[in-house]
Amino acid sequence: MRASAERNAPLYIQIGKSLARQVAMGTLRAGDRAPSLRQLSRQQRVSISTALQAYLWLENQGYLEARPQSGFYVRTPFASLVPEPQFEDKKSQPARMGTNAILAEIMETTSDPANIPFGAGVAGSELFPIRKLNLILRRKIRQQPLHSAHYDFPPGAEPLRRQIARHALSMGCGLSPRDITVTFGALEAINLSLRAVAKRGDAIAVESPTYFGILGSVASLGMKVIEISTHPQAGMNLDELERAIRKHRVKACVAVTNCHNPLGYVLPDKYKKSLVELTARGNVPLIEDDAYGDLVYSGDRPRALKSFDRKGLVLLCCSFSKILSPGYRLGWLAAGRFRDEVNRLKLLSTVASASLSQIVVAEFLESGGYDRHLKKMRGTLAGQVEGVRQAIAKYFPKGTRISRPAGGYMLWVELPAKTSGLKLYRAALAEHITILPGTLFSATGRYQNYIRINCGHTWSESHDRALLTLGRLCERAV
Amino acid sequence: MRASAERNAPLYIQIGKSLARQVAMGTLRAGDRAPSLRQLSRQQRVSISTALQAYLWLENQGYLEARPQSGFYVRTPFASLVPEPQFEDKKSQPARMGTNAILAEIMETTSDPANIPFGAGVAGSELFPIRKLNLILRRKIRQQPLHSAHYDFPPGAEPLRRQIARHALSMGCGLSPRDITVTFGALEAINLSLRAVAKRGDAIAVESPTYFGILGSVASLGMKVIEISTHPQAGMNLDELERAIRKHRVKACVAVTNCHNPLGYVLPDKYKKSLVELTARGNVPLIEDDAYGDLVYSGDRPRALKSFDRKGLVLLCCSFSKILSPGYRLGWLAAGRFRDEVNRLKLLSTVASASLSQIVVAEFLESGGYDRHLKKMRGTLAGQVEGVRQAIAKYFPKGTRISRPAGGYMLWVELPAKTSGLKLYRAALAEHITILPGTLFSATGRYQNYIRINCGHTWSESHDRALLTLGRLCERAV
Repeated sequence: MRASAERNAPLYIQIGKSLARQVAMGTLRAGDRAPSLRQLSRQQRVSISTALQAYLWLENQGYLEARPQSGFYVRTPFASLVPEPQFEDKKSQPARMGTNAILAEIMETTSDPANIPFGAGVAGSELFPIRKLNLILRRKIRQQPLHSAHYDFPPGAEPLRRQIARHALSMGCGLSPRDITVTFGALEAINLSLRAVAKRGDAIAVESPTYFGILGSVASLGMKVIEISTHPQAGMNLDELERAIRKHRVKACVAVTNCHNPLGYVLPDKYKKSLVELTARGNVPLIEDDAYGDLVYSGDRPRALKSFDRKGLVLLCCSFSKILSPGYRLGWLAAGRFRDEVNRLKLLSTVASASLSQIVVAEFLESGGYDRHLKKMRGTLAGQVEGVRQAIAKYFPKGTRISRPAGGYMLWVELPAKTSGLKLYRAALAEHITILPGTLFSATGRYQNYIRINCGHTWSESHDRALLTLGRLCERAV
Repeated sequence: MRASAERNAPLYIQIGKSLARQVAMGTLRAGDRAPSLRQLSRQQRVSISTALQAYLWLENQGYLEARPQSGFYVRTPFASLVPEPQFEDKKSQPARMGTNAILAEIMETTSDPANIPFGAGVAGSELFPIRKLNLILRRKIRQQPLHSAHYDFPPGAEPLRRQIARHALSMGCGLSPRDITVTFGALEAINLSLRAVAKRGDAIAVESPTYFGILGSVASLGMKVIEISTHPQAGMNLDELERAIRKHRVKACVAVTNCHNPLGYVLPDKYKKSLVELTARGNVPLIEDDAYGDLVYSGDRPRALKSFDRKGLVLLCCSFSKILSPGYRLGWLAAGRFRDEVNRLKLLSTVASASLSQIVVAEFLESGGYDRHLKKMRGTLAGQVEGVRQAIAKYFPKGTRISRPAGGYMLWVELPAKTSGLKLYRAALAEHITILPGTLFSATGRYQNYIRINCGHTWSESHDRALLTLGRLCERAV
């Protein structure tokens, strides 16, 4: 059965490739259950362990997906044949970023319900546990009528911090309620972290590409950005990071290693450990943005960098905005050795977080509703994101590459070399479609031919049409 | 009738002093209506205009209070005989302020319900319109179940900004909803303002004494404080401010001119105008903290500095925390020509304000409930503050001086010269009484023998006992 040219590849890859051919030929179709490990081992006359390796290789290549307690299933082949965006390794230099005028425009157009919402990172309300949160809200208003008549001074309301500490166990973190500071979302947490560990003029290492909110925060605090080339499997180029720490006296590093925004990957634990160890050797504080980590599509909740922290140098920033509803403005921070400074800065900048939000989310976590909701939302998102991937693969010009996210809402799309993400953004806006141009995700003008697509909203006919339109607009956006 | 030694004083002061003697002797008692202007002019054989001058002098001295459409009434004489704190005119120098460790401790002890709450500036829940706000909350959750499923990106929810613009008319400000940015309370507004107009190392002129949150924010942003001696009737020493602007290249000035915290006065309009004109001449942005201005005890809502602004240089910072409930975390900012920069900084630091708070407060304002509530709360506060003043006058050692606030919750108390506010703070805490030491209100260690007393809670027996205890503790706090 196995082609002779492949005889030099390891056995599991040979088996994997033969199965991939069956998918390409349509023998195995999207959604089909792949043979069990036992069946495969019998069919191919290999050990169970080799069969498993073959499936893991196929999963990594995007042909199969593992479903817990259920086995391996064939993924939609069409989209999986579209390659992922290319990784470019560039030298890093400190850079100051100008005011990004486009950001204000984007926020305005995003809030307009007339626009198709592929722009800002917001999920559709149908994905949030609205009914349950409203039930809790009504009950708490009745039970605690004085809910808002006080300040929840930093670190914030104790019942919520207790629940967060419990939840952090799923991230591999043993935290006490005292370790946690409640914030107005993850971005306030990142701001407080940056202010606690660095000052104006200091160099901050970030992934490239990275979430524009991080770049904007660093710039707005007068700090300099050093972009470290980031591989969508292995994360930041650690050699380059080490060189930057030595050469540019990096004062902090900001990393998104779970459901990366915009790349979508989850960094494997060994790379996480290496990153934490490398920064710890240089005594460089490591600010971790884990706003999407709870939204991994399958498998366990990935570990936080914080779980590898031995020196209290990791500042873990999380949010409920992407999972429960952004309007509650609730996030949290475990700032390690910078805790007291972070609490002081919170007190002197926003004083306290909103009381009712804290009461409601604490109750939702305590009731177990949060975990049940996560389970459902993960499955829904996986399907939605795959739907958008397929449509992009179908409608966008040849040469388009699409990220293969492990969680979250985002797709990172590399357009053919001469297509301008910014021009596409403008042309799309004229058609009432919002997207984000890739340049937003770099402080140095990289990613000109990239866009980010938010897949947080339930897939619909109008979204399909919008992607068709976008695909056509690509031709002109050069 | 008039003593010969007083013959050299202007006629209206001679008349005023003779009436003051009647109060001191008990001929006129607290709460009595003073003779009408016509009666006084006949009795004293002076013009109506001189009679009015005499009453204004008596009002200024604390013997009378004017009640709109009702005439002049005798104020409680006992407390009014206690003089106000002394005004000391000191040379200003830029200063860096260290981390104020005491602040964190104060926030912790303030939140403990076992302590008598004379410390942080929080009103008792009985003063807030809890029932009405909860009714609106429940109704809005029902009518708009998706209340929190989106971001209210800067400048914030339009219905609330519209109501705020309407409310700002009472402050003499003609603002459009576009001029307003919704914030997490006045302190976020002050932070955004400082960040928009100045940077690390810049000198910021502030009143002395001033609200510790302002001093802390300036310090936490790495800026330097220049304290300008502040007179409790005439406000900042404008000559000194002018000198500081010239000499130390002041990048911004922060002023609290309505119900000053901690001094309690409302700056007369002519001084407000002079302050705005002086800073405008030097093109110095003027950050106005008007968190308590709505809580003036009598007369019209005082004008904001912003109402005198011709160049867009005044950044007006307001809050609903002191009036509706702090836990909603809602304030606002009218940043003039710095509006776009402020919106950008808000987006990059806390993204958006909490949605449900904005919906509820907008509705409360629109329904007219806010104005009705203010009317009631002003009257209640005036009584509460006077109650505390009387008790302090009764229980504190000879030589104590107490401020005579025109609004808000705060009393500023000057203890006899050798008494330490900080020692009194510590001794009081041991007795489960929180107060604030005066040194918090200076970046340069002034006000060692001062304390601030929060009168936001309904007067009770236990408060009376606590003030008796405080008075006794003064003897030992040297």
